[in-house]
Amino acid sequence: MPLVVQKFGGSSVADADRIRRCAQRAYDARRAGNDVVVVVSAMGKTTDGLINLANEITPVPAKREMDQLMAAGEQISIALTAIALDMLGQEAISLTGAQAGILTEPSHTKARIKNIETAAIKRELARGRIVVVAGFQGVTADGHVTTLGRGGSDTTAVALAAALRADVCDIFTDVDGVYTADPRIVPDARKIDRISYEAILELASLGAKVMATRSIFFGAKYNIPIHVRHAMLPDTGTMIVPESKDMEQEEITGLALKVNLGRVTLTNLPGGPGVQGRIFSQIAAAGILVDDIIQSEGSGNAGDGQSAGDSTTVSFTVEHTDLVDIKPVLDRILADLGRGQVRIDVGLCKVSAVGVGMRSHTGVAAKMFQALAEAKGSSGGVGIKIQNITTSEIKISCILAKEDGEPAMRAIHAAFGLGR
Amino acid sequence: MPLVVQKFGGSSVADADRIRRCAQRAYDARRAGNDVVVVVSAMGKTTDGLINLANEITPVPAKREMDQLMAAGEQISIALTAIALDMLGQEAISLTGAQAGILTEPSHTKARIKNIETAAIKRELARGRIVVVAGFQGVTADGHVTTLGRGGSDTTAVALAAALRADVCDIFTDVDGVYTADPRIVPDARKIDRISYEAILELASLGAKVMATRSIFFGAKYNIPIHVRHAMLPDTGTMIVPESKDMEQEEITGLALKVNLGRVTLTNLPGGPGVQGRIFSQIAAAGILVDDIIQSEGSGNAGDGQSAGDSTTVSFTVEHTDLVDIKPVLDRILADLGRGQVRIDVGLCKVSAVGVGMRSHTGVAAKMFQALAEAKGSSGGVGIKIQNITTSEIKISCILAKEDGEPAMRAIHAAFGLGR
Repeated sequence: MPLVVQKFGGSSVADADRIRRCAQRAYDARRAGNDVVVVVSAMGKTTDGLINLANEITPVPAKREMDQLMAAGEQISIALTAIALDMLGQEAISLTGAQAGILTEPSHTKARIKNIETAAIKRELARGRIVVVAGFQGVTADGHVTTLGRGGSDTTAVALAAALRADVCDIFTDVDGVYTADPRIVPDARKIDRISYEAILELASLGAKVMATRSIFFGAKYNIPIHVRHAMLPDTGTMIVPESKDMEQEEITGLALKVNLGRVTLTNLPGGPGVQGRIFSQIAAAGILVDDIIQSEGSGNAGDGQSAGDSTTVSFTVEHTDLVDIKPVLDRILADLGRGQVRIDVGLCKVSAVGVGMRSHTGVAAKMFQALAEAKGSSGGVGIKIQNITTSEIKISCILAKEDGEPAMRAIHAAFGLGR
Repeated sequence: MPLVVQKFGGSSVADADRIRRCAQRAYDARRAGNDVVVVVSAMGKTTDGLINLANEITPVPAKREMDQLMAAGEQISIALTAIALDMLGQEAISLTGAQAGILTEPSHTKARIKNIETAAIKRELARGRIVVVAGFQGVTADGHVTTLGRGGSDTTAVALAAALRADVCDIFTDVDGVYTADPRIVPDARKIDRISYEAILELASLGAKVMATRSIFFGAKYNIPIHVRHAMLPDTGTMIVPESKDMEQEEITGLALKVNLGRVTLTNLPGGPGVQGRIFSQIAAAGILVDDIIQSEGSGNAGDGQSAGDSTTVSFTVEHTDLVDIKPVLDRILADLGRGQVRIDVGLCKVSAVGVGMRSHTGVAAKMFQALAEAKGSSGGVGIKIQNITTSEIKISCILAKEDGEPAMRAIHAAFGLGR
């Protein structure tokens, strides 16, 4: 019998009525002749509510206990979902992460799945039941409850689909698929029917709100088709699948916009080897997430009185929220290096175009830059200024002034004919 | 090192501030040189809220799933309590019923504890930690979550105290002890310092809101002193302990009042043996809880045209809420017996006096009846009418008109000099 894993996010199970509708969906899949495993998140804002409760006691709650606390959220939603299935006349059983055999590393609040012991789930499926598993949570070998971090329920679903060799993993959410661009920014954005794991990973990491990247890695590793679709609508959504020939025909598959970026530029640094390693290891140690690193080799600072060959300039972008903590870290780094200056620019954004077709098509970057040059920018004049460019095999990103982000998206979307 | 089990009820952990105060209390006990195991209920009205959620989906939710659902309530409160202890600088760990090794029968929503595997708790105590255990819940041998029914957290606490051979089990609640009578009815009621398991069991089953009777049975069986005390006040409360010589000195220890009773009288029943068994087995099968059974042997119905020796009258009291379901059951019983009539009286109450000293004192019943005869009843005249009397070795109960309950309590309390 085919096996389907269905994941319902927090907004899809936010109240009793929605839970009933999710249960109906799982029941329909079962009656269509599938074995069904359902993964649910905590209801609506439950997890946030629990975190707030803990923070009323202390701003730095013990992590093991936070996991014990947060795991209660999904325990509530799995029980209610099983109750709703039972009411439909469908035998069902809810399993917590521990009961479902989801074994993780002992790193609390961001545990990684080590192994899934599927015996319990398979036994219940063999009894004809729909198995409702708590997303986001697992258990250590010692029996401590863990959670998987943000997006953990997606990870649970895809990891379960992989462990059970499911035919498909449905990710039900509050959008009806993955779009060529955010429709709130680009009104004629089109729903993508099929996209490769690689392209969706790029889009997600570049700012498109799709699903948790870790779960897509799992899907890619075990070749599990992931179907992103709307929980309350019957339509098919976007299938995330292995790359295929037809995908290479498109120059670009989709666009992403990341806003609220700042750029840190370190100038007049010593030119020797190892400088970059010393800089970024200290930034990482401070828990600051670097977005892009940009270095133009030999870009010496002419005013520093030293020869250009001896000095290095390094830029990198970070999200605004991380800028708060970065100044003292940078001061320590420069003191450690013995020289250098810092400049911080805020109010930037990053527009990215992604597509596996870039590997075989030439001129994609040129077409994108041309579109920006001809676009009407925020200032009213023609031409959007590109401040930095970074590329990978399947994406091109441009750093722009924040105000230019949305017009740039529309211009590139139109230039590549991505619309309906 | 002495070992204390401390149980905090739902109202004592209803919000972050109260949880902090309970944690402080556990911390104080630890600093006073005890090993401490804390048992907590779900916060405030959490359990009711979860039950309501399930009932929004269906009025008859699957019981296994109700247990999974309700158990989330204590999982939240144990984690928050451990967080609060941690904040005080006291190492702590929360354990669900399953993690704490509380193994139960598989009867969902009213499981009985079979065994407690204390290894995990002992290991954590040996590390110097306060162990915070979820009340009300356990786990079957197959790993299904169970709950223990109403008052289950008290049962968890006393059962843990027994299994761990604790020196005392503190039951922290929102009253400061057990009183000679409900102070809202008898203003000069006095807090009882020490009371026997047997007497408190009688009081609790007779309507005094003390603590769950099942937990007191555990205490009695394993000789665990139970200390009922106020969660937010420092005073000592009432110690529930094995019976001792001094307790026999008192004629009466306390009074209880049970209101909203109805009385069913079955007249003109066949006089043969086995009639009572057939009646009450059918009532029990219908899930109706019988309070007291009263039978005056040979009380035949003179008007039935048969000899008195051939007919039997049986009365019993039930709570008003059970009267709703009882009529069709009674009709079936009479049809089955082939004869008999039903009369139902409502608006009754039961006043009971309890004390182990009754065994050695004579005239306690007479003194009680005399007090009622001299009391001013609800009608304004002197003398409260006793409708039925039932007794056991350590209690005397009188069925009265509902309105006479409170004046009767005050009259008996005064007659035995129970006040301050």
